[in-house]
Amino acid sequence: MKKSLIALAALTAFAGAASAQSSVTIFGIVDLAARSVSNGSAGSLKTLSPNGQSSSRLGFRGVEDLGGGMTAGFWLEGDLAADTGNATGMTWTRRATVSLNGGFGEVRMGRDYLPTFVNISTYDMFSYQGVSTISNLRNTFLASGGATTGVRANNTVSYFLPAMGGLYGQVTVAAGEAVQGNKHEGFRLGYAAGPFNVSAAYGKTDKFGTAIDDLKTVNFGGSYKLGFMTVQASYEKSDYSTTNQKLASAGVQVPVGAGTFKVNYIKASGSADTLSATLLGAGYVYDLSKRTSLGVGYGRVANGGNATLGAKYTASGNGPAGIKGGETSTGYDFSINHKF
Amino acid sequence: MKKSLIALAALTAFAGAASAQSSVTIFGIVDLAARSVSNGSAGSLKTLSPNGQSSSRLGFRGVEDLGGGMTAGFWLEGDLAADTGNATGMTWTRRATVSLNGGFGEVRMGRDYLPTFVNISTYDMFSYQGVSTISNLRNTFLASGGATTGVRANNTVSYFLPAMGGLYGQVTVAAGEAVQGNKHEGFRLGYAAGPFNVSAAYGKTDKFGTAIDDLKTVNFGGSYKLGFMTVQASYEKSDYSTTNQKLASAGVQVPVGAGTFKVNYIKASGSADTLSATLLGAGYVYDLSKRTSLGVGYGRVANGGNATLGAKYTASGNGPAGIKGGETSTGYDFSINHKF
Amino acid sequence: MKKSLIALAALTAFAGAASAQSSVTIFGIVDLAARSVSNGSAGSLKTLSPNGQSSSRLGFRGVEDLGGGMTAGFWLEGDLAADTGNATGMTWTRRATVSLNGGFGEVRMGRDYLPTFVNISTYDMFSYQGVSTISNLRNTFLASGGATTGVRANNTVSYFLPAMGGLYGQVTVAAGEAVQGNKHEGFRLGYAAGPFNVSAAYGKTDKFGTAIDDLKTVNFGGSYKLGFMTVQASYEKSDYSTTNQKLASAGVQVPVGAGTFKVNYIKASGSADTLSATLLGAGYVYDLSKRTSLGVGYGRVANGGNATLGAKYTASGNGPAGIKGGETSTGYDFSINHKF
Repeated sequence: MKKSLIALAALTAFAGAASAQSSVTIFGIVDLAARSVSNGSAGSLKTLSPNGQSSSRLGFRGVEDLGGGMTAGFWLEGDLAADTGNATGMTWTRRATVSLNGGFGEVRMGRDYLPTFVNISTYDMFSYQGVSTISNLRNTFLASGGATTGVRANNTVSYFLPAMGGLYGQVTVAAGEAVQGNKHEGFRLGYAAGPFNVSAAYGKTDKFGTAIDDLKTVNFGGSYKLGFMTVQASYEKSDYSTTNQKLASAGVQVPVGAGTFKVNYIKASGSADTLSATLLGAGYVYDLSKRTSLGVGYGRVANGGNATLGAKYTASGNGPAGIKGGETSTGYDFSINHKF
Repeated sequence: MKKSLIALAALTAFAGAASAQSSVTIFGIVDLAARSVSNGSAGSLKTLSPNGQSSSRLGFRGVEDLGGGMTAGFWLEGDLAADTGNATGMTWTRRATVSLNGGFGEVRMGRDYLPTFVNISTYDMFSYQGVSTISNLRNTFLASGGATTGVRANNTVSYFLPAMGGLYGQVTVAAGEAVQGNKHEGFRLGYAAGPFNVSAAYGKTDKFGTAIDDLKTVNFGGSYKLGFMTVQASYEKSDYSTTNQKLASAGVQVPVGAGTFKVNYIKASGSADTLSATLLGAGYVYDLSKRTSLGVGYGRVANGGNATLGAKYTASGNGPAGIKGGETSTGYDFSINHKF
Repeated sequence: MKKSLIALAALTAFAGAASAQSSVTIFGIVDLAARSVSNGSAGSLKTLSPNGQSSSRLGFRGVEDLGGGMTAGFWLEGDLAADTGNATGMTWTRRATVSLNGGFGEVRMGRDYLPTFVNISTYDMFSYQGVSTISNLRNTFLASGGATTGVRANNTVSYFLPAMGGLYGQVTVAAGEAVQGNKHEGFRLGYAAGPFNVSAAYGKTDKFGTAIDDLKTVNFGGSYKLGFMTVQASYEKSDYSTTNQKLASAGVQVPVGAGTFKVNYIKASGSADTLSATLLGAGYVYDLSKRTSLGVGYGRVANGGNATLGAKYTASGNGPAGIKGGETSTGYDFSINHKF
């Protein structure tokens, strides 16, 4: 539920300059999870973490009716680490865009999600957060390769298709502004009808880091509502030079009582043992209302490689540092998620 | 006065998705004080400071009715140094929490105030800010000992008692997350009836800095409304290893014309001369409305120790650096305080 | 169009504590420009920049009716680099003030614009932003001299004249707080009547950097609405020790179709060749609504000096580094500007 700030024609007499077409919405999520993560020989750590069922966030957005079926809009949204009071400062790096919408579709500019991320996260039942999410195994080659384009990019210009039956899609380019790892082009195309949804995406980040090759990512996925339950699956391959990672996921969610039980399994296999791992994740979300829920989560990551190597993957980034190749990381948490 | 963003059942037709139970409030204070502080041999400095009558701040909070006497809520609040446009960036480090309330009381998680701080500041007539406040003498052992828990802590989980006659109380634990000086446990218990309020609190920060002992703080206080005037007093003791500080305060506030005159006296005595000092503070607040007031403040700190030692205490942190032991710090200011 | 958050007497029954006099407004601009800048031998760069037609920004402000013709108010406004999601953190450094207004005029405190900036920017048709603005040539001696007072200052106290026929004016002082380059005194005086507006301002920043002289800036300007078009001009001189810069500008704006065509010419001549340059700027703004517009901009800067010297001036700061004396910088962009 979002709160339209005002913009009520009937109230213009009171609200002064507010016009009938105007609206600004304040929205966000405060999600806090009491979590324990055990990282093999590195030991375990108990934390309060801001991402149990989804990322904590705060934002402002608005839409203006331009007439003739056109609208203009803006969207500002940033991370909100409520466990520390967001001590590093409020930004709008989750999304900061301006849009023009009409019969032609949508033109959008700013910092925004990339097509490949939108696509892979659509088929993650855990909102790309917490101990059970595909995010725990997905390598965006940020550290090793220098790409900044695993999830979002600065300086994007996107075009989104208008509503055309069940077909949907977008094309996105991001200006590199002479910074290696920033320049990106990608697209996404999908089709949804009734209980059924499938989509695919492709993205290319120009020559980055010390690699002479572009980083190319392709992924696709689908979901199907089988009466009371939903099944979904996805596949992704990312590669540059001789480095690559393949990610396969399958999951199911089932209503149980006033809540939902979810389970998924992810398998990552890469060009090196340290890029390979599996994740078994499960969670139960109990809805106190449409906006507020309690959750329990579980995740178990089994890393590839051997003990002479540092392992890459853990059940959330909130555990102790130092897990080794071949070791397992186990995490569980209890969370409150409140949307506004 | 706070502005409920919307949440009006009668307006649902206009406000679209806004539900009758929803509300988000934007709130804050802009307080600016033209201040002069003289710090003994270090000289004097004139400033515009963001904390004349209370801390400047900006926040968002909301409450959702879950039915059955339960509510969920969030609270985001950060400092707002209006003198510099808050150049270091907007955070929510004053408070960032999510809560569940009901007949059982309140469960709250996030970054929050600690019981010992809530208790001591309740009996400070100067809102823990400015030239006259107990804050000017209170040593939270942040610098010397490494505790981060003088006022607030990250990663807290608290339980607050429900309304039970005049009895109130809370228990708070903060996860250390393997950072020294962060782990904390504390509680507060009080009783208020008619003109009368008393409360006590205790807090313990686990082994911190290079000290082998925990930092323990205990404090209590009371206030009494004697017809037209209010008297109040408090006492606090903090200690770890062989270091300690004792703080005693007494104050009175009296309505004078359209405003309020306040005066207090604080005596700090510590395990070292440099932990000892006295403060005489006085102020007058003139209310232009319920939300806006003008104020004048005065504070005089007399430091213990001698001139071979650096002194710790000054009448606000906005004076020149370099005051010595045995010297006095005098501050006065004129302020505007506007709440929204 | 701004959205008053509430403050509607008629809704007090619903809105609880909201008083009839209260209002908080969320406001801002998201402006993104696809831009290309060519800087002589330094080459060219394509960017998405957050300042096509005006600066992107986000703010909160409010007014409280104190009765008797008096009001109190606050204003918080910060920059909003939507191209990067404002990755450096949200501040309120554009303006953070508290005000008292009445028949006497306005007293305002906080971080605020300076009289000399308000005056020179009034006669810049390009809102002090983008490829065509006088800002591209104006030297505020921030880098070379250490003054921090070209546009705004921290710690200001200002007095604004009340409405007196067409006469308007302000006096502003900024406390230095013992930081070189911060202490400032200035004033502005103007007269507006019908199609006609003239004003002048003066500002002095106390001894700054290693200079023994104060930095003094004086400027004046005027505009005149000639039926369908507006002409305007301004002049500014800034100097300290033997360093100075003189800025002369002239511009005209003409309605063309549903938009406005603007062109200006700026000439800077300074005590050194590297302080001299000319700028020819032109732009067309097409209004989709009162709040949303499309724009195209063009600017060409011809630097003084010669190729052995680094040049100071470019058509926006978003081009490649390394332009040399005597070289030209050319920029053009396409922008969307959305106000809320």
